[in-house]
Amino acid sequence: MIPRPFRWLPKRDFPADQWRLIERGHHDDLVGRTESLFALSNGYLGIRGAYDEARPAHQRGTFINGFHETWPIVYAEDAYGFARNGQTIINAPDGTITRLSVDDEPLFLSPAADLVQADRVLDMRNGVLERELVWRTPLGKLVRVRSQRLVSLRHRHLAAISWEVEVENAEATLVVTSELFNHQDAQSVDEPTVFDPRRAKGMQHRVLDPAFQEVAGGRIVMGYVAHNSGMTLACGIEHVVSTECDYQTTSESSEDLGKVVFTVHAKPGSPFRITKLLAYHNSKSVPPSDLAERVNRTLDRGSDSGFERLAERQRIDLDKIWDRADVRVGGSDRLQQAIRWNLFQLIQHTARTEGTSVPAKGLSSQAYEGHYFWDVEIFAFPFLLYTQPHIARDFLRFRHSILDRARQRATEVNQVGALFPWRTINGEEASGYFPAGTAQYHINAAVMHAIKRYVEVTGDEEFLVDTGAELLLATARFWYDLGFFDEQGRFHIHGVTGPDEYTVIVDDNVYTNLMAQMHLRYAADVLEWLEAKHPDRHSVVIDSVEFTDGEADRWRQAADNMYVPYDAERGINPQDETFLDKQPWDLEETPRDRFPLLLFYHPLVIYRHQVLKQADVVLAMFLRGGEFSPELKKRNFEYYDPLTTGDSSLSASVQSIIAAEVGLHDKACEYFKYAVYADLADIHGNGDDGVHLASVGGVWMNLVYGFAGMRDYEGRLTFDPHLPAEWPSLEFSLTVEDRVLDVGVTRDHIEFRVRDGDDLTVWVREKETKLISGEPITVGL
Amino acid sequence: MIPRPFRWLPKRDFPADQWRLIERGHHDDLVGRTESLFALSNGYLGIRGAYDEARPAHQRGTFINGFHETWPIVYAEDAYGFARNGQTIINAPDGTITRLSVDDEPLFLSPAADLVQADRVLDMRNGVLERELVWRTPLGKLVRVRSQRLVSLRHRHLAAISWEVEVENAEATLVVTSELFNHQDAQSVDEPTVFDPRRAKGMQHRVLDPAFQEVAGGRIVMGYVAHNSGMTLACGIEHVVSTECDYQTTSESSEDLGKVVFTVHAKPGSPFRITKLLAYHNSKSVPPSDLAERVNRTLDRGSDSGFERLAERQRIDLDKIWDRADVRVGGSDRLQQAIRWNLFQLIQHTARTEGTSVPAKGLSSQAYEGHYFWDVEIFAFPFLLYTQPHIARDFLRFRHSILDRARQRATEVNQVGALFPWRTINGEEASGYFPAGTAQYHINAAVMHAIKRYVEVTGDEEFLVDTGAELLLATARFWYDLGFFDEQGRFHIHGVTGPDEYTVIVDDNVYTNLMAQMHLRYAADVLEWLEAKHPDRHSVVIDSVEFTDGEADRWRQAADNMYVPYDAERGINPQDETFLDKQPWDLEETPRDRFPLLLFYHPLVIYRHQVLKQADVVLAMFLRGGEFSPELKKRNFEYYDPLTTGDSSLSASVQSIIAAEVGLHDKACEYFKYAVYADLADIHGNGDDGVHLASVGGVWMNLVYGFAGMRDYEGRLTFDPHLPAEWPSLEFSLTVEDRVLDVGVTRDHIEFRVRDGDDLTVWVREKETKLISGEPITVGL
Repeated sequence: MIPRPFRWLPKRDFPADQWRLIERGHHDDLVGRTESLFALSNGYLGIRGAYDEARPAHQRGTFINGFHETWPIVYAEDAYGFARNGQTIINAPDGTITRLSVDDEPLFLSPAADLVQADRVLDMRNGVLERELVWRTPLGKLVRVRSQRLVSLRHRHLAAISWEVEVENAEATLVVTSELFNHQDAQSVDEPTVFDPRRAKGMQHRVLDPAFQEVAGGRIVMGYVAHNSGMTLACGIEHVVSTECDYQTTSESSEDLGKVVFTVHAKPGSPFRITKLLAYHNSKSVPPSDLAERVNRTLDRGSDSGFERLAERQRIDLDKIWDRADVRVGGSDRLQQAIRWNLFQLIQHTARTEGTSVPAKGLSSQAYEGHYFWDVEIFAFPFLLYTQPHIARDFLRFRHSILDRARQRATEVNQVGALFPWRTINGEEASGYFPAGTAQYHINAAVMHAIKRYVEVTGDEEFLVDTGAELLLATARFWYDLGFFDEQGRFHIHGVTGPDEYTVIVDDNVYTNLMAQMHLRYAADVLEWLEAKHPDRHSVVIDSVEFTDGEADRWRQAADNMYVPYDAERGINPQDETFLDKQPWDLEETPRDRFPLLLFYHPLVIYRHQVLKQADVVLAMFLRGGEFSPELKKRNFEYYDPLTTGDSSLSASVQSIIAAEVGLHDKACEYFKYAVYADLADIHGNGDDGVHLASVGGVWMNLVYGFAGMRDYEGRLTFDPHLPAEWPSLEFSLTVEDRVLDVGVTRDHIEFRVRDGDDLTVWVREKETKLISGEPITVGL
Repeated sequence: MIPRPFRWLPKRDFPADQWRLIERGHHDDLVGRTESLFALSNGYLGIRGAYDEARPAHQRGTFINGFHETWPIVYAEDAYGFARNGQTIINAPDGTITRLSVDDEPLFLSPAADLVQADRVLDMRNGVLERELVWRTPLGKLVRVRSQRLVSLRHRHLAAISWEVEVENAEATLVVTSELFNHQDAQSVDEPTVFDPRRAKGMQHRVLDPAFQEVAGGRIVMGYVAHNSGMTLACGIEHVVSTECDYQTTSESSEDLGKVVFTVHAKPGSPFRITKLLAYHNSKSVPPSDLAERVNRTLDRGSDSGFERLAERQRIDLDKIWDRADVRVGGSDRLQQAIRWNLFQLIQHTARTEGTSVPAKGLSSQAYEGHYFWDVEIFAFPFLLYTQPHIARDFLRFRHSILDRARQRATEVNQVGALFPWRTINGEEASGYFPAGTAQYHINAAVMHAIKRYVEVTGDEEFLVDTGAELLLATARFWYDLGFFDEQGRFHIHGVTGPDEYTVIVDDNVYTNLMAQMHLRYAADVLEWLEAKHPDRHSVVIDSVEFTDGEADRWRQAADNMYVPYDAERGINPQDETFLDKQPWDLEETPRDRFPLLLFYHPLVIYRHQVLKQADVVLAMFLRGGEFSPELKKRNFEYYDPLTTGDSSLSASVQSIIAAEVGLHDKACEYFKYAVYADLADIHGNGDDGVHLASVGGVWMNLVYGFAGMRDYEGRLTFDPHLPAEWPSLEFSLTVEDRVLDVGVTRDHIEFRVRDGDDLTVWVREKETKLISGEPITVGL
């Protein structure tokens, strides 16, 4: 991979801490990035880490997973089967704004403000964003503001803020304005001034049609209907005041803004504190007025609990998750902080998704329109599978819930079976650029791969019977229909785009063909198993896919004869049939400021060169390692690595994992840094626009599959660790069926302990190792 | 080619006639098609053949070449270098509507109307559309309406209508309403109900902003500014009445409608006649009020002349053109009619283009947005070059006028030199689908090819010095930059789309590589010649393209080492490097109602199969015949012909020409029918949406290059005729430098006569034949 730039946060102001991301002082140049880095989420509701005072802000954002608007895609040149409707996650009304003015002087964090202190802390063990600020007003009054914010893991529809102000050295008149504001329709609809297609498209119409506003004391509840999609929302805020100061309250509301205003006669030593509760309920069709009931109940529950109880529960819930999910490395607090920050993102953005999947940016931004991609099944999945398998299962159930749409999509592109949309919220294909959208048929295999691993690791056969088998079969027959046998009997799949989007519509992409092969075989196996073990369900499933006689045999025939390009002269796998005929891109001569290439070169220029966004042959060597000899892996890696820009955030961790496997340990360490600091050091230059959730998932993979050298082909756990030189240790846990397996790696040995559940067999560098429940076992390296 | 359907006009009602297209009776099911077939144009102004009475109508259309609106292309997924602005020809205000009511009964041609007679005649020698109608009103009055319509070849901005009504058997009160109406902004902006991307995109905004309306007696002049493009228009109508009946006139005008109303007290034997003049002036920037002056002058001149004088001049001008352009075949009036109808389209739609090019549909429709494509240089060009070379030259000058934009476009796609837009009106790329747009780099070579042929046939070296050389060099260096030398020293061009749009973004497309080879060589030759003969101009030109030392040598090296795929096993040229690896499309098994494929299959499905829209290897064999042995031509033709759907209207004539060359005379005749009846028998099913101008150009090529077997490689005229069995003779004329060469072919011999100018040498089946000016020479076959 070419060297990637680190845009480090200033170390002095962002000190190392094992469990907390800390910012000291206000950084006007980091407003956008810290909104992303300090974002909170529970997987249903996500709130960017924007300041309480409304500005400065890059993009204030409150997102509800799956709550989206649709809009017709208008093509300058249309064609048959193109996706018809765009989908964009809506920026839901923002309940976090609390404005303060002291003797009519408004508080704003600006370089001009006299700030004695301005700290923010994301506490990843508590799941709380804290803030402490001391401001010297133009009149010399010292104003201390403390706030804490959480998005509740326990109460899915609830967020809470504890906000407190105290004037330390004088009396003063404070005006505190707490708002609920619809940014979506106040956002500028202009095109972004900086060209970046990864950002969300501005919608040109009013998105949230107001349904009602209710004001009652400190409580405001507002209802909306999304103009095109018809999705409904009710949201509300409630305030519980605790103070010894005199104050008055007024409240009001209009279509896009509800506000509660507190006028406070503040005295030194007497803080004014509000507990603010935020509640959101949405639906495909329930009227907003009915949702308002639910919002009121959520607000009631929240205010009954109070902030402290909510924070306590948050800690309890997180403790449970960290107990299975934490990864510890010795030697560097800063690295430990970065690792935990990454894991925390995956934890919080997936915790309560329930019935949806998780967008590429989690709920930290509107970028990529809030769409779900294959990232979930390939990059986020391993972490979830080995730490919180019920969430992994839910993501697969989500796929099942959109299976009918995937069937319809297959028909729209003139094929049989089912084809999952490349990007979607509601199940319909939303990609307006099919060469890097619909042509990425490999998403079907990503779903298959996740099912296979899920069943192998959890042993959840019931899921396979109920849900998995139907998914597998409907998508397997798509592959068979897509490809064809040539005159020599080899099975080809033409006109596809692999994960590396820097070439498109190619023939026999190695990644795609190997994954399709696995898919066809596994589907045939599962079908056989289903017939033997669950004949009734077998009948139902084969009916549902209109199965024909001998179809599974034909799948096996296609899999057995799958053509995988190999270049004997160079001894490598060409990425696709003609990849090696392309002109190599001169990456050495490309100025560093021309990356990512996609922002500076026409797609045709990129497509005609040997240059990679991400190395999909390398990904294939990870997912289907058994298909490549060690020597071939090394040759492939050494061929593709120098051609890889890493312009995709999916790239670094997989590149690191295979670098470790083929013995290129310096590269493994370097690429791991690109992964673990992808967001924290803004490697991709778009840190303002949210976190890279797949990269974050890659970090866990990098640690476990890369440095601990774990592989889990066919449900067999093997380890071949290679710790970076400066790491004394690496510890993590794996949930396997009902057990928790604690793993500790040092330079000399690897230690296992089955914490709960049955005995287990693992392999360390080919050596079979039987683990007895409760007994630590150490294997020398 | 697969069999194409003929949707014949009913023969009885459309009788054969050598010079006229005749419709007897009203055909409600042919309203759209006859609007296209009866369209009139002079290349500047085009008017669809819609009825005077406003309805029934498919789409009333008045088009001014180059008068267009722009609109931002919004991509659901954007990328660097994508075209930014769409361009659409505007449906200019319609001045042809003349409504009639008799005793308050409005005249409309509907199946319910009692029509005694309803004839229309397109007279192709006179350039006039005539109409005669006898209507029996519900009260039994016999109303005869005669009208004649012309778009003046002499007066570029003028159209004229002679409209006459007479009540034959009674007195009556007639109300005659003559209108000037802005359809563009009255058009429904809904998406078309039938999916067909070949149609124009509805624009969603008000296009023509009204600038002024002037009403003075029977004259109305209106001014507009196109909302986004800022282009300006003034248009007007004037009326000269001739009658013995009493009548009153009123006139009025609003933003979108001007009308003059005549209330007539009609008596039997006393016709009421209006001569209506229509004038249009447009500009990029001149204020509409200034343009109004020009409109007034045009209307003055028109009314001074009167309809008869205008018609007389029309005939004189057309006589001159037909004298050089006519093609006569013996034996069938119907075939002769069809041939002349085709030639007439090319004549009228190109006559006064002056400074613009000609849209794919001429000025007969808004389809393809009124864009200019390569069709002009490859398909329309030969006819113009050999009959009216000044128009051919003007089209090349148009290319020169947009050369700066082509340079800019090359920069936008990260290349050096110049790249002509795949589709455009104003010179900017307007294609919103680059795989079948920008990737069709071969448009550069089409311009080169036209320049080369133009210079060879006309001997116009001055043009080459002034205009041609700069065009050639700027575009040649694009090819060199686009391609690359492989390790064996072969020059490749990757990631292109050839003329066959049923595969895209392919490597080493045979057509593209052979045309680029010709381009590089010819540019190097011209450069050398320029340096020797016109050293001053040479300096200017090489400065203008920032020429580097040895660049021409490198071009020759690339041309000499151009890689042209050849498959030794099959003994054919693969269309591109991987074409033969694709799965063949089963055309036999494809239902006939699933053509054109592009309306029924997702592009990915089409792209991954061996199936052709048009056979571009076959086109290469026509344009670069010397590069293929006769045996190779035959093998190639026999391989590609069965894979060719002919879904492109550019397909049939070229297929016929090569079928004739390789001795497949039945196919040659069959495919010629698809070309010559493409519009008349609505072969492509979209006859409502205008004429297929490239197909029409192909008809002339089919006759001259196909059946007369002419080739003109390197300026050397050779003939190898193969007349269809049922044709006694084929006669045509060629303008070569200053001569006119008349050619007559029969089954036994070919006769030449140099009508004007110097002696000339031609070759008949390899036999050199010296022609002496004025002396007919016959060569036996």
